[in-house]
Amino acid sequence: VILDDLTEALGADCVVTGDDTARWGRDWMGLSDWTPLCVVRPRDTAGVSAALRLCHDAGVAVVPVSGNTGLAGGTTAEGAVMLSLDRMNAVREIRAEARIAVVEAGVVLASLHEAAAAHGLSFPMTFGAKGSAMIGGMLATNAGGSNVLRYGNTRDLVLGLEAVLADGRVVDLMSALHKDNSGLNLRHLLIGSEGILGVITAAVLKLVPTPRAFATAMVAAPDLPGALRVLNGLQEATGGAVEAFEYMDRAFMDQYAHLHPQMQEPFAARHDVNILVEVGAHAPRDVAPGPDGQAPVAAYLEQVLADLLEEGAIVDAVVAQSDAQRAAFWARREAAAEVTMSRKPVVLCDIAVAVDLVATFLEAMQGRLALLDPEAVSANVSHLGDGNVHYAVWVSSRDAGLKAAITEAVEDEVLRLGGSFSAEHGVGTYKLGSMARRKDPVAIEMMMAVKRALDPKGILNPGKVIPS
Amino acid sequence: VILDDLTEALGADCVVTGDDTARWGRDWMGLSDWTPLCVVRPRDTAGVSAALRLCHDAGVAVVPVSGNTGLAGGTTAEGAVMLSLDRMNAVREIRAEARIAVVEAGVVLASLHEAAAAHGLSFPMTFGAKGSAMIGGMLATNAGGSNVLRYGNTRDLVLGLEAVLADGRVVDLMSALHKDNSGLNLRHLLIGSEGILGVITAAVLKLVPTPRAFATAMVAAPDLPGALRVLNGLQEATGGAVEAFEYMDRAFMDQYAHLHPQMQEPFAARHDVNILVEVGAHAPRDVAPGPDGQAPVAAYLEQVLADLLEEGAIVDAVVAQSDAQRAAFWARREAAAEVTMSRKPVVLCDIAVAVDLVATFLEAMQGRLALLDPEAVSANVSHLGDGNVHYAVWVSSRDAGLKAAITEAVEDEVLRLGGSFSAEHGVGTYKLGSMARRKDPVAIEMMMAVKRALDPKGILNPGKVIPS
Repeated sequence: VILDDLTEALGADCVVTGDDTARWGRDWMGLSDWTPLCVVRPRDTAGVSAALRLCHDAGVAVVPVSGNTGLAGGTTAEGAVMLSLDRMNAVREIRAEARIAVVEAGVVLASLHEAAAAHGLSFPMTFGAKGSAMIGGMLATNAGGSNVLRYGNTRDLVLGLEAVLADGRVVDLMSALHKDNSGLNLRHLLIGSEGILGVITAAVLKLVPTPRAFATAMVAAPDLPGALRVLNGLQEATGGAVEAFEYMDRAFMDQYAHLHPQMQEPFAARHDVNILVEVGAHAPRDVAPGPDGQAPVAAYLEQVLADLLEEGAIVDAVVAQSDAQRAAFWARREAAAEVTMSRKPVVLCDIAVAVDLVATFLEAMQGRLALLDPEAVSANVSHLGDGNVHYAVWVSSRDAGLKAAITEAVEDEVLRLGGSFSAEHGVGTYKLGSMARRKDPVAIEMMMAVKRALDPKGILNPGKVIPS
Repeated sequence: VILDDLTEALGADCVVTGDDTARWGRDWMGLSDWTPLCVVRPRDTAGVSAALRLCHDAGVAVVPVSGNTGLAGGTTAEGAVMLSLDRMNAVREIRAEARIAVVEAGVVLASLHEAAAAHGLSFPMTFGAKGSAMIGGMLATNAGGSNVLRYGNTRDLVLGLEAVLADGRVVDLMSALHKDNSGLNLRHLLIGSEGILGVITAAVLKLVPTPRAFATAMVAAPDLPGALRVLNGLQEATGGAVEAFEYMDRAFMDQYAHLHPQMQEPFAARHDVNILVEVGAHAPRDVAPGPDGQAPVAAYLEQVLADLLEEGAIVDAVVAQSDAQRAAFWARREAAAEVTMSRKPVVLCDIAVAVDLVATFLEAMQGRLALLDPEAVSANVSHLGDGNVHYAVWVSSRDAGLKAAITEAVEDEVLRLGGSFSAEHGVGTYKLGSMARRKDPVAIEMMMAVKRALDPKGILNPGKVIPS
């Protein structure tokens, strides 16, 4: 009967049923699949509101979905109504002087990038799934990425939003304000809530001027604490213009070289601590090409790195001399998924610790791994500038117990260091167990209380985020 | 009986009664006073927890207070238990490489500034009350200030916190993480909640490297949209290093000159749109003094402004040539309260609109003012870079109706432009009426639901923030 009601309220073309729902019925990772009752595709906020009101009255579970590219199982929806935002895909307005974009939740990230670029501006969040991930899902999951160091997480790029609550009420927080102390901050409560408190339908986003030139380097540091000092030094030398500071360890470099023997090595020798550094520049003095066609920012970075080399703060460094060399540096970093998945079995963890504790974490794990699986090899790629470690372990056996024990050890060490078992990817369903065991119990009680207060019937994305 | 219980649990020296409570019993602005039942001054989080548990059991209202320098009446506490955090004033730890400070809620802002300076770092939030405002109150009110443009509001400088809930439960969110997607964001919910959801007892704060040199200028722009283009241009020229971009209008300049006739005028002529610009620099190329003793960043700013003058983007500009001149520029800006209060009666409003709508707001208000009080003169000082206008109107009569009508007109225009009736100062009790009439009704319903969920007995700072 809910199907009939939804069809009547929204129109038959807005309600997808049967086999046509298949493309929404599986996880992007291929880790799970499900059969939704139907997929509702409203054209506007009023449609979202109507759909939610009907489902709320009927007590039917609703799972919001946008690009469906999440990594935490946040859209599993067996028997539920899926609410797809894909038709609400207008970039409503770009106000270049105010550096804001007003967008609907179904705008694909890459489309927003294009729209902003037409104004010489950028929405500085980007990641692999940008061709299908949508703004609504990015906000719902507070998506991360490589530029968080300079521009923050998704939540830091949001000035305002509109959302529909479980019972269909629409909350209008669509302001473009940098300062607004008018009561509890509902925007931050909704961002990162993974669809359990409301469905985000539109947002006001910050844009930034696109750097006009980049200087990109591979740097070898003596160790991780040394790498952090290098980051701090580069931030001071550039006035905080470091766009990326990406750590790759020796095992990662080895495996990448093994997979891509034709690619030139950045250094003559192999090092333990390899960093991809990128600096973005805007000022004419850094950007206007010199006689050699290079932007001065590249020469500037070269000078800064030469000084660090002389001081012994770094072991080696090479600044990209061409777009092709820059692309090659990035290709190595962007092969992270390929490299880590190239040996099986593999255990993957997305964790965060304080930036000055990354080395402590990795050292502790070396000890734990030696006991759990003497043949295990860990490889990792980290957003070192923000303490987010993508920790991969190539293990010697497919034994599920071994994998679980390693994950457990990782989370133990993370907890001991005050870190998070989920840095970028969220909780969804896959990390519910970690949430139950690792999160402060009072924090979970608070989350439960807020959830009950805003969705007392529990129809919004049930079974996600908060352990029951 | 609650007095006895508190005394027994915390010790007599932690419970202040009778006349000794007087210094907590009044508003900093002198706008209201009250007689609390007592003031409890716990030594640690356990003490805060014990006090709250007792008050919760007894159903007694609790009003948290730190520096008591708020501007919104957020600590009025007639007959309530005031909970002062002033004894919990330890800077527990500064980790310079990670650029964090771990502090208790009672740390005075100026003390944190000193502690960070010892490491060559800054906590970049500052404002007039820094000698008495405490971290707990700053977080509870999400305090703003002059450096928000570059470093964000207080909430943007907080990585972790600890809080005690109404019933005494302690929630531990004391992480130092730049990425943490482990459930609902309770940190942002507590920050800016003005003590109605919990009492913040400790925090992990971000520090930033202190600029080693500043370039400071007074700039006259042709109009406000032109000033915004100048800001965007300066941000690009400096890679986002603009620390302040403070607008002063002609009436403000006139009145300041009238009050301080001995102070040198920045420009030969008087202009409508006057901007105090400050750029902070870290890099050796910008900082190392030249033969003239000046940091190169000053010459750089001079060159950028000379180019803008030639293009006609600005009307006049003068770069400070000495610390004394820089101080004189800032003295004018920091006289904002003195200047606006120097003529009475005055109506003061702290509002925010989108940065590209400040001119629209001010123009609309000129029309409204002409109708309400033809003799009224508006003077204003704005954090133009973040759209926060401190709008002052010198009116011709003490008539309360006139003042109310002007405030009403300001808030009408702000609402029409999608702005906020409270940019920096919060709601407290003084802006409850505005909250009721101006905030999205569904947003207020959500706030009520969250409040009931986390403080069902309503003992925490009752009657504040959320209209009943």
